[in-house]
Amino acid sequence: MARAQRSCKDCAVFSFELTASDSGSKARRGRLHTPHGVVETPAFIPVGTKASVKGLTPSQIVATGTEIILANTYHMLLRPGPEVVAEFGGLHGFMGWDKPILTDSGGFQIFSLASLAKISDEGVTFRSHIDGAKLKLDPQSAIDVQNKLGADIIMAFDQCPPYPCERSQVEEAVSRTLRWAQACRQAHTREDQALFGIVQGGVYEDLRMRCAAELCELDFPGYAIGGLSVGESHEQMMEVLDYLPDELPEDRPRYLMGVGMPRDIVEAVRRGVDMFDCVLPTRNGRNAQAFTANGPVKLRNEQHKTADQPIEDGCDCHACTHFSRGYIRHLFVVDEMLGPILASIHNIRFYQRLMVRIRELIEQDNLQAIYSEYPVAT
Amino acid sequence: MARAQRSCKDCAVFSFELTASDSGSKARRGRLHTPHGVVETPAFIPVGTKASVKGLTPSQIVATGTEIILANTYHMLLRPGPEVVAEFGGLHGFMGWDKPILTDSGGFQIFSLASLAKISDEGVTFRSHIDGAKLKLDPQSAIDVQNKLGADIIMAFDQCPPYPCERSQVEEAVSRTLRWAQACRQAHTREDQALFGIVQGGVYEDLRMRCAAELCELDFPGYAIGGLSVGESHEQMMEVLDYLPDELPEDRPRYLMGVGMPRDIVEAVRRGVDMFDCVLPTRNGRNAQAFTANGPVKLRNEQHKTADQPIEDGCDCHACTHFSRGYIRHLFVVDEMLGPILASIHNIRFYQRLMVRIRELIEQDNLQAIYSEYPVAT
Repeated sequence: MARAQRSCKDCAVFSFELTASDSGSKARRGRLHTPHGVVETPAFIPVGTKASVKGLTPSQIVATGTEIILANTYHMLLRPGPEVVAEFGGLHGFMGWDKPILTDSGGFQIFSLASLAKISDEGVTFRSHIDGAKLKLDPQSAIDVQNKLGADIIMAFDQCPPYPCERSQVEEAVSRTLRWAQACRQAHTREDQALFGIVQGGVYEDLRMRCAAELCELDFPGYAIGGLSVGESHEQMMEVLDYLPDELPEDRPRYLMGVGMPRDIVEAVRRGVDMFDCVLPTRNGRNAQAFTANGPVKLRNEQHKTADQPIEDGCDCHACTHFSRGYIRHLFVVDEMLGPILASIHNIRFYQRLMVRIRELIEQDNLQAIYSEYPVAT
Repeated sequence: MARAQRSCKDCAVFSFELTASDSGSKARRGRLHTPHGVVETPAFIPVGTKASVKGLTPSQIVATGTEIILANTYHMLLRPGPEVVAEFGGLHGFMGWDKPILTDSGGFQIFSLASLAKISDEGVTFRSHIDGAKLKLDPQSAIDVQNKLGADIIMAFDQCPPYPCERSQVEEAVSRTLRWAQACRQAHTREDQALFGIVQGGVYEDLRMRCAAELCELDFPGYAIGGLSVGESHEQMMEVLDYLPDELPEDRPRYLMGVGMPRDIVEAVRRGVDMFDCVLPTRNGRNAQAFTANGPVKLRNEQHKTADQPIEDGCDCHACTHFSRGYIRHLFVVDEMLGPILASIHNIRFYQRLMVRIRELIEQDNLQAIYSEYPVAT
């Protein structure tokens, strides 16, 4: 496979190189260069919604093999506010994380969390779910906030339609997303941040194709696929991924937002996706659900009461190398914080080990083997 | 100062040596040898009530300079039960902590947490505060449970009278505590555990003296002072400590249970106490109250919103070397677990740095200097 390396004009310090591919699928092995370091792709991005991956210190996050984390612009806008974060030199300085960070644009959370959200071509007005304060985000302010937060990768302000949704509404969302993408492109000024465009279009192929084609004309350094973890089935997600990645430039990273289960990730990688973020490892961890290659383990179960084995045999995470299922079960049963912490550490490491193995198998041109190593992905 | 080293007949692997003393006070510098390592004294023991120092992994606890932790027998009796812990080789194996551990006898928690506690010379019946199950503890079973939990230091089953309390009730508690101490002495069989006796007697000097004298006849490898953090004033505590440590054998460690504030600890060390345990650093940490040499810092305060300084200047803990007050304030304001974790790490390290400094100043025969270095202790 030829090496494709390219710096986008707006972000000289940002580049993406493809280093290998899998002949049995469209999977790509790459390397994303950012001002705060390299991200090996396909990559999984743990979520630190409020500038904290719940319960973990940055050094514990690094120990899971994580190279990039995500923070939510909507939450940071509410508390502590972008000006406060900017005083600490942005999210990196604020939260003590010196590796790459990605922020979303805030649009998705406005519709899932805020109240009284009203959308127009000018932007979205909404009320804070914390104190009811009236707020507004538009392409200009979404970029301005993200410039202040200072992540390495920032996202265009888009409209993510719900699922299911009338075609006419999705069409309107695509048109608005495209207009806003252009506005974001113009509003973005920081050369040390890469602004990604977001493809919307729901499950409508022609709308997805149109959105991808027009976004590509704006020449973004990376492209996200939005609106695909909003309620549709795994099969519907895969139908979109069967054609959409091919419509995006080969030499730019492709980021599937908010996805997903191990199976979703493996199948999306096989269709040419490079980046993923998801709350599942941490959220499920806090709820005593552990991921393993053979499927979920419910850590509260009575059956683990005297189990001396780790959460997952062969796992090299801090939880599995230091603690038994029996002890971790006890921690959950008696409501000790350390239970959620250890389960989150394991689950993030599970995801990162999956990504390591995916990357190795792509390099070996044998991604197919992932199914036997990870029955949970079938 | 002459070296006093002695092994108690019941615990050949346990010894206590005194290495220095402060001529301006009765403070002693010592070293407690246990099967799981050495504890430098005066020592502070963080509390891991339910076999977990809340929110911290053992390696994070070790990083605070902690050499010994405490777990509560009452809580372990309820969940997961001593038999379960025994299957993991005791608390050390269960919780992944390979340094010394101390367990209390359960008596104090029965009266502060359980319901329908009824005491007689035979023991105490009570109902679990978790599920209402009817349970009983007596000298034999308290030792049996602690033998199963396998801590390095275990405590005799005592009766801790409340404060204030009629003299006649305290007298009865002292008599019962003495009878039970003898019963515990006989019930204890494990040579790798040191059983400490507990001196009760409230604020009545003659009762304290009697209790100490009769306990000493039982030749325990260590002596605890109980019932002194149950509501009486700092001054009343010091009145007891003015005479009581002198009544205990010089060559045995003296442990003041459940104490306390930095000032309490400094004053008790000056009166000859060697060991302390207290929930304050972790409990206050979870409530956003940080200890510093100059007094408490309320981490939720608006004034810290953009503060780039650490919790305490000059502190070498993980929280102070990696995070600002502004970030930690944010974590508390948005209810992120990492806030309590970082504040607990700082507070435990604060206590351990205080103990390090106390030990150094005793070695330099200059403990008096602690007051200028720690204004909070005055």
